[in-house]
Amino acid sequence: MNNITRLRCDLEYAIHADTHFCFNIQASRRDDQRILDESLVVTPGIQVRQFEDPNNGNRFFRCDGIPGTLKLRYDAQIEMLRSSPDSSLQESSITEMPNEVLHYLLPSRYCQSDVMSRAAQHLFSGAPRGYARVQHICEWIRDNIAYQLGVSTPTTSAQDVYLQRAGVCRDFAHLAITFCRALNIPARLVVGYVHFNDPPQDFHATFEAWLGGRWVMFDPTHLAPVEAVVRVGNGRDAKDTAFATMFGSVTMTYMHIQVNHDGQPPSENPDPIEATVQRLVMA
Amino acid sequence: MNNITRLRCDLEYAIHADTHFCFNIQASRRDDQRILDESLVVTPGIQVRQFEDPNNGNRFFRCDGIPGTLKLRYDAQIEMLRSSPDSSLQESSITEMPNEVLHYLLPSRYCQSDVMSRAAQHLFSGAPRGYARVQHICEWIRDNIAYQLGVSTPTTSAQDVYLQRAGVCRDFAHLAITFCRALNIPARLVVGYVHFNDPPQDFHATFEAWLGGRWVMFDPTHLAPVEAVVRVGNGRDAKDTAFATMFGSVTMTYMHIQVNHDGQPPSENPDPIEATVQRLVMA
Amino acid sequence: MNNITRLRCDLEYAIHADTHFCFNIQASRRDDQRILDESLVVTPGIQVRQFEDPNNGNRFFRCDGIPGTLKLRYDAQIEMLRSSPDSSLQESSITEMPNEVLHYLLPSRYCQSDVMSRAAQHLFSGAPRGYARVQHICEWIRDNIAYQLGVSTPTTSAQDVYLQRAGVCRDFAHLAITFCRALNIPARLVVGYVHFNDPPQDFHATFEAWLGGRWVMFDPTHLAPVEAVVRVGNGRDAKDTAFATMFGSVTMTYMHIQVNHDGQPPSENPDPIEATVQRLVMA
Amino acid sequence: MNNITRLRCDLEYAIHADTHFCFNIQASRRDDQRILDESLVVTPGIQVRQFEDPNNGNRFFRCDGIPGTLKLRYDAQIEMLRSSPDSSLQESSITEMPNEVLHYLLPSRYCQSDVMSRAAQHLFSGAPRGYARVQHICEWIRDNIAYQLGVSTPTTSAQDVYLQRAGVCRDFAHLAITFCRALNIPARLVVGYVHFNDPPQDFHATFEAWLGGRWVMFDPTHLAPVEAVVRVGNGRDAKDTAFATMFGSVTMTYMHIQVNHDGQPPSENPDPIEATVQRLVMA
Repeated sequence: MNNITRLRCDLEYAIHADTHFCFNIQASRRDDQRILDESLVVTPGIQVRQFEDPNNGNRFFRCDGIPGTLKLRYDAQIEMLRSSPDSSLQESSITEMPNEVLHYLLPSRYCQSDVMSRAAQHLFSGAPRGYARVQHICEWIRDNIAYQLGVSTPTTSAQDVYLQRAGVCRDFAHLAITFCRALNIPARLVVGYVHFNDPPQDFHATFEAWLGGRWVMFDPTHLAPVEAVVRVGNGRDAKDTAFATMFGSVTMTYMHIQVNHDGQPPSENPDPIEATVQRLVMA
Repeated sequence: MNNITRLRCDLEYAIHADTHFCFNIQASRRDDQRILDESLVVTPGIQVRQFEDPNNGNRFFRCDGIPGTLKLRYDAQIEMLRSSPDSSLQESSITEMPNEVLHYLLPSRYCQSDVMSRAAQHLFSGAPRGYARVQHICEWIRDNIAYQLGVSTPTTSAQDVYLQRAGVCRDFAHLAITFCRALNIPARLVVGYVHFNDPPQDFHATFEAWLGGRWVMFDPTHLAPVEAVVRVGNGRDAKDTAFATMFGSVTMTYMHIQVNHDGQPPSENPDPIEATVQRLVMA
Repeated sequence: MNNITRLRCDLEYAIHADTHFCFNIQASRRDDQRILDESLVVTPGIQVRQFEDPNNGNRFFRCDGIPGTLKLRYDAQIEMLRSSPDSSLQESSITEMPNEVLHYLLPSRYCQSDVMSRAAQHLFSGAPRGYARVQHICEWIRDNIAYQLGVSTPTTSAQDVYLQRAGVCRDFAHLAITFCRALNIPARLVVGYVHFNDPPQDFHATFEAWLGGRWVMFDPTHLAPVEAVVRVGNGRDAKDTAFATMFGSVTMTYMHIQVNHDGQPPSENPDPIEATVQRLVMA
Repeated sequence: MNNITRLRCDLEYAIHADTHFCFNIQASRRDDQRILDESLVVTPGIQVRQFEDPNNGNRFFRCDGIPGTLKLRYDAQIEMLRSSPDSSLQESSITEMPNEVLHYLLPSRYCQSDVMSRAAQHLFSGAPRGYARVQHICEWIRDNIAYQLGVSTPTTSAQDVYLQRAGVCRDFAHLAITFCRALNIPARLVVGYVHFNDPPQDFHATFEAWLGGRWVMFDPTHLAPVEAVVRVGNGRDAKDTAFATMFGSVTMTYMHIQVNHDGQPPSENPDPIEATVQRLVMA
């Protein structure tokens, strides 16, 4: 069987005080990716409340953690049905855009398209319209922004990235989204799983632009083909699509992600001895 | 009859090039305000598409303007049924909050609650919890932020207001929302009509905090009682609740708002001779 | 006689409470501009203390104003001896730079060259070195930044200008200085008098870059030839070179500048009826 | 003999490409600290050019490094003659301030006193004037800003510190300076050596305010008594007082500072095996 991706996501947290968790790590249910099989194991076996955001199909689960260790393992087998993007797609006029698409034209926490409106005009108003213009934005970003770990922080926004000229996948996506919105092309962040040739394996952020009356995915990092991205969530920016939002006092002690696009089962995890990962906690 | 508010909103635009408009000026349909009568006149008589956002009840209408003049007159008669807030309401634990309320805990374009988390803790962690704490936030803002026209711009965010210590009603509301979210109290912006004793009459911005399992309105400016505010829209911040979002090239040449809480009909408008109002256009 | 410039600067202030003034409006004494004649009249006739900054030749005078009106008239006749810049000048290596030039490589209030280091590298590392590179910076600014009144405020810095892509002469100069410093070319702000073909006449801001072992003036606005600028002051940025720094409570009610590069005497000033100028006061 | 401080500063750099260094690590020559003995060893034995800034007595030395290792050892024996501050000192009126003190009232790269003017007024206008007010600022900072490593970066300014409410000694000093300037009290950064009870030993940043016609040192961190600080440099902010400014490509691989206020000689340095220090390089 072709087009089967198997993935595993292991997360572990040290909970210091009662903490409420809201996770967004499951593959979303969509026409372009069919979930053949999935399982979610939370240890210890606490109650988990699942819900699906009717606006965007994102799947969340919430739970209350008490001091100690919380482990999650999510396994999924997905049939990928996404076709290659059609490069002849055109930009929509505003009047054609559905009501629910309009707010992806607005600035958001990480994407200050209002501030960067003129910069976007200067850089991209001369480019051919449509799919080619968004591709042009992606190329500009790849040529002008260094892919570099450790430069951006949890508060780094698109305008910071534009100034500092360095960042990681979500920074690239935020900047692309900001340029698109400033040019009246609706755009939103997409988070998902995809295999990187160069570890460390992590969640990946790409973005979608509204072209030809549909959402079309682009990856300004070029780290992986967009057809292969198993989607988890989408939203205005990274605030809407965090894989974990936590309220309390907690440290992420381990994260291990495996994505096998050849359909092979995940290997056993390495021992999480040296895990020193730490992520911001909303407290 | 008591509790009848009559209002009129007149807007006029000079359209320089084809422009798409999305207006949010109609009273929202809610249990706490009953629309007895309303009318909307758009001149010239172009096609208008109305829709209501199912997530928050905001009512929008969209239209395409061609070069020339566009005039709008919205009249409404509203029965106000909002009761005084219950000052004994408590803050909800995160785990109790409905799924759809959770994202009002996240930072947004104008409300960087992530950046201001410690400041909020320092200022308000000692205050009594619940309704009193939100009131305390409002009082702090009134005591520390000068109400002043002309200091803030369309890109001014809560952290700018906190630094510059001056702003107008929407700045006050953004700062209050930011503090609330940083303290794990969901909060959102509300825009509406209310009579000001001191002109100029304009749209008014207040905010709501999630207390005791419901949204409760507060006005950090103290310009008018919250029971009297005829609600138009609510959202994460002012980007979601602009009374007009425009895509094209246009100048607002006139705005006149009348709000009569005694139920009296609006008086004839003064001649819009010297109208020099200008608002930002998203182009 | 050629090369004689006559200029007049009239300023008027309404003083609301005791205010200390520090003015920097006199032509600086330099080899490339010879002061043939000058006069300064302060009304009422209060005591004025003059001093010259030994580091940069800027001339200041300080005085204490009491509530009422303060008027200043500065007249000067200057022989301009500045030659056209030598476009073959090379960038200096850091090791060659004199000690006192080094700090013009550092970021300052309005010129965050540390933040914009990579952006400068991306934009200008490919340009030919030396005079041509600074000229290239000026051209980039002219091509990419709109000259527009009312966009920038007293706190607008080079990074804001770069983001918003609009500003006035001092914004242009700040951005050019920032790029230069980020490329290890010392740069500083210069303020002076020059005739504009398009009124309103105002103080003008240009900048100097350290090339070939000397300071060379550039004007990224192209509003006037640099040979014609009567220099008043130079410094790290506009904070060092404000024409008036005031401590107290005061409003500038009138400003009128005349610059005649043909040596003609200034005409009588128009009546200051419509003066509505207001400038920020440091209180 | 009392009041003798002996100090040693060891620095080591890995130079990747030709780099110009400008160091500011020597004790400054002043009436309140007498240099009894000092030595500076640079390995390899390259040429070093020393100079003293006539404006503030800071001592610098510059040298050109070639790829390889550069080591510096600075030893000094200082007699400390600084007396305890006089807490009855008064704020000066602006008119009394010497010309060269005035620019310590202006905003600088890290100290945007223009933006934070109202905040400073709100927080400190009610405090008693003079020495007590500056002490009040220091106490406010200690009460409201968390001393925490790893929160601030090389571009963190006073307004960031005020928003994020956390930082290290230089952040504390920048915020204090900003408040002082906003209140018309001239203030400047001071960098020096002092013994910390809690390692790691590092350069220390304090600040001075202009009170009673002289510069008076304060330490908002309370990490050490100000009488004990061996001064190295002072300036508008940390940009003026960096212990090393480097132009090239270089990594700091080792830093070890010893400060013995009892006059004891420094102990032998531990082996620099685990040195992982890295500092920003201006390239």
